[in-house]
Amino acid sequence: MDFLSFFLMDFVKQLQSPTLGFLIGGMIIAALGSQLQIPESICKIIVFMLLTKIGLTGGIGIRKSNLTEMVLPAAFAVMIGILVVFIARYTLAKLPKVKTVDAIATGGLFGAVSGSTMAAALTLLEEQGIKYEAWAGALYPFMDIPALVTAIVVANIYLNKKKLRAAAYSTMQESFDKQKDPAGNRVKIWPIIQESLQGPALSAMLLGVALGLFTKPESVYQSFYDPLFRGLLSILMLVMGMEAWSRIGELRKVAQWYVVYSVVAPLLHGFIAFGLGMIAHYTTGFSLGGVVILSVIASSSSDISGPPTLRAGIPSANPSAYIGASTAIGTPVAIGLAIPLFIGLAQTLGGG
Amino acid sequence: MDFLSFFLMDFVKQLQSPTLGFLIGGMIIAALGSQLQIPESICKIIVFMLLTKIGLTGGIGIRKSNLTEMVLPAAFAVMIGILVVFIARYTLAKLPKVKTVDAIATGGLFGAVSGSTMAAALTLLEEQGIKYEAWAGALYPFMDIPALVTAIVVANIYLNKKKLRAAAYSTMQESFDKQKDPAGNRVKIWPIIQESLQGPALSAMLLGVALGLFTKPESVYQSFYDPLFRGLLSILMLVMGMEAWSRIGELRKVAQWYVVYSVVAPLLHGFIAFGLGMIAHYTTGFSLGGVVILSVIASSSSDISGPPTLRAGIPSANPSAYIGASTAIGTPVAIGLAIPLFIGLAQTLGGG
Amino acid sequence: MDFLSFFLMDFVKQLQSPTLGFLIGGMIIAALGSQLQIPESICKIIVFMLLTKIGLTGGIGIRKSNLTEMVLPAAFAVMIGILVVFIARYTLAKLPKVKTVDAIATGGLFGAVSGSTMAAALTLLEEQGIKYEAWAGALYPFMDIPALVTAIVVANIYLNKKKLRAAAYSTMQESFDKQKDPAGNRVKIWPIIQESLQGPALSAMLLGVALGLFTKPESVYQSFYDPLFRGLLSILMLVMGMEAWSRIGELRKVAQWYVVYSVVAPLLHGFIAFGLGMIAHYTTGFSLGGVVILSVIASSSSDISGPPTLRAGIPSANPSAYIGASTAIGTPVAIGLAIPLFIGLAQTLGGG
Repeated sequence: MDFLSFFLMDFVKQLQSPTLGFLIGGMIIAALGSQLQIPESICKIIVFMLLTKIGLTGGIGIRKSNLTEMVLPAAFAVMIGILVVFIARYTLAKLPKVKTVDAIATGGLFGAVSGSTMAAALTLLEEQGIKYEAWAGALYPFMDIPALVTAIVVANIYLNKKKLRAAAYSTMQESFDKQKDPAGNRVKIWPIIQESLQGPALSAMLLGVALGLFTKPESVYQSFYDPLFRGLLSILMLVMGMEAWSRIGELRKVAQWYVVYSVVAPLLHGFIAFGLGMIAHYTTGFSLGGVVILSVIASSSSDISGPPTLRAGIPSANPSAYIGASTAIGTPVAIGLAIPLFIGLAQTLGGG
Repeated sequence: MDFLSFFLMDFVKQLQSPTLGFLIGGMIIAALGSQLQIPESICKIIVFMLLTKIGLTGGIGIRKSNLTEMVLPAAFAVMIGILVVFIARYTLAKLPKVKTVDAIATGGLFGAVSGSTMAAALTLLEEQGIKYEAWAGALYPFMDIPALVTAIVVANIYLNKKKLRAAAYSTMQESFDKQKDPAGNRVKIWPIIQESLQGPALSAMLLGVALGLFTKPESVYQSFYDPLFRGLLSILMLVMGMEAWSRIGELRKVAQWYVVYSVVAPLLHGFIAFGLGMIAHYTTGFSLGGVVILSVIASSSSDISGPPTLRAGIPSANPSAYIGASTAIGTPVAIGLAIPLFIGLAQTLGGG
Repeated sequence: MDFLSFFLMDFVKQLQSPTLGFLIGGMIIAALGSQLQIPESICKIIVFMLLTKIGLTGGIGIRKSNLTEMVLPAAFAVMIGILVVFIARYTLAKLPKVKTVDAIATGGLFGAVSGSTMAAALTLLEEQGIKYEAWAGALYPFMDIPALVTAIVVANIYLNKKKLRAAAYSTMQESFDKQKDPAGNRVKIWPIIQESLQGPALSAMLLGVALGLFTKPESVYQSFYDPLFRGLLSILMLVMGMEAWSRIGELRKVAQWYVVYSVVAPLLHGFIAFGLGMIAHYTTGFSLGGVVILSVIASSSSDISGPPTLRAGIPSANPSAYIGASTAIGTPVAIGLAIPLFIGLAQTLGGG
């Protein structure tokens, strides 16, 4: 069977999976004006349980695995997280009518990772019977934090330079004031890292990793977090589908270039990650399932931990630009196109 | 064993089932002044999960079944939904001191379906080992929507006639104003149907039906929605028991005829449905379990989707009349009397 | 193997159990400033499900057991509940700078029982394979209510005596007013008992006991309440860990004697209960697992049902004294020291 027909069959099959079925179902009922609401507190506990489960899986996996295996993929994850921001800085930000800070913030959100998208990929990999390292989910923070930190740092550097240039044309007095308090304009990296780690998403996942590493949580993992995972994800997918639909309007207010970026960027980032992952595959035996996960977390854009971090770190950026781009277009592209694409690629390479 | 002793033994046995046990338990702890509260957000997600599960069961069932089988029971469901409103219009509404719009709204709520009551019946049927068509739960919207729509249409027709009669005694000017905007008084049926379908209850159930029909949700169905169903229902039954007790007071404010109606109507509607169901049983082989389900959804009165729809559609009707009648008396009669009665009848007919 | 090394090995093993792992994890992430929050509505439903499950276990156990067995341990539970308040009244209350009402309220909270601590002990007993009577969890209210009632009564008696003494030095007029309304100063015991029984915690547990006794809830017990128990407890332990950390500050405001009391009292109460439990063990065959449970509920201090009851019953007591002492120190000591200590003691005695 040739690649295209295999890919198409697989794509249709994945559209019928509960994960994508509930996402599309959510978009459809939102489009039809459904009054269904999943309470905010339920979404929070579902996200907690999903990320704790992913963390526990990672922690138990790391405890039982060869740690040296993880070094190269983790280093690649950090590299991708930083690179994605610079790609947005030198492509999206250069397009007409696009504000530079908005573009940098969007890059940060597309570099950051969606726990739900990753969860969808893990579930689909298991449904397809594709093996992956148990610690692969623990690559999440290695890409997420560098991306958000880089975005905030790059945005602040840009804003500082702009200010200095403006000051050069301005009165001496203002320029003098600026020099009096240079520390106020210096970008502080550690508080940004700390804020990311203290957010609900990364807290839950890193707690899971730590509990998996240092305690024996197997009994609650097997009786609770693991069996409930797919069902809880189906509810979250429904919510994300409804949200994606409701935010499509936000995008109309900003430059149409965001649409182009939001469709192209997840696939581009995914291919970069796939290439780096394949290097790890041939040099250190990183599994093909792991390569898919690295590609999917590169494709995904954050819809849980990212927006509040960026809103606090780059207050001058327009949230409807980056949230609209990420949730309304980036996430459906990552889940609906990137996941089946990279799973299909891995299956083709694995079978060949 | 004669019918009565069989029915009584069965009734006592069903009082000990978790479903009725938690309902009665809820009424007792409410009567004893318990401060126990199940948060609103928890009730919402439980209702969502119960109705999604019922929908999934229906959708998977329809996908695997002969669609032509369903035509006759579905047609009977629509007939019963409409008939129930007209019964209330020409019995309850004619009683002394009963306001006509209140009676029509009450008829609408008794014609509409309670997802929880139906869920209780499905659970009891499974406990008793009585077979029923997997799509029988999907009869729900075929009775629910026509009942609510008919109630709102009949109420608006009544109010319009009353207004016209009042206008005949009134000044020419007012009568003239009325004729200038006749569309404002015309009853719009489609928005009412649309509103019912967009409500949280029918949204969740129809979403489940669609996902069951067009995707392959078996993995989340078997790992999540199905195993958690009984336990979640036990919590909802407790909540309904507590609510039923707390709303008994509401009924004291309105005519005592509501009490008579609320006791008689569920049984009468159930018997009409049982009769029609038996016609389907002998002509098209509709199962006895299916006949019970048709009877129970006829007996049941809505406590989730109905009240907000009626409040919006017939704003002049007194909510404490119809909600009090339904939740405080109608639902306990449907669950405590109608369900065991029709299960007992089905077992007697099935065994004979 | 000697006792100490056995105890230490067991202690380390229990620190790795999910129960204690999540508690310590909660304290650590709170200390690191995590923004993770488990919504209040989720905590409520978890507490409801945990206590209903404990009640169901007790009720089903009592239904299947010899009721006469339970008389002696239940009588000891009542005795301990009352005794604990008098210990606080004549030790903590006599220490310098400690306000008497605060000390009595603290005694009440340490005499009351923590459903979560008991749940942790039941889980650890099962993990260790130590047998206990199924009704042992139903000893909970026999200690909880007498402790809270005794605290409120003793506090009101103290406040009344103080008032009368103050009145003797005061004007005739005030003394005269007092005599006009003597009933207002009399301590009413029954409303206090009623309030405790109507609280969410005891309502849920006693409902579970009643449903276990009078209905057949085995199907929902086995499909829902029992399998979800450990996982839900892990979430609650995380919350309690975070709360314990956040309330450490509250204790700095009050006398340091609370720290001494909060460390010593759980162990002292536990040893009294262990001694009484061993009497029941040798006279009526009360299991060693049951002795551990009696000791743990004596060691535990209430963090769910107790505080609101005491706040209503002894409004002049400072909540940050008794809640801080109980949650920040008493509960970690009960879970981290008392549970492994009494399990170790029982294993040593059982194996010897």
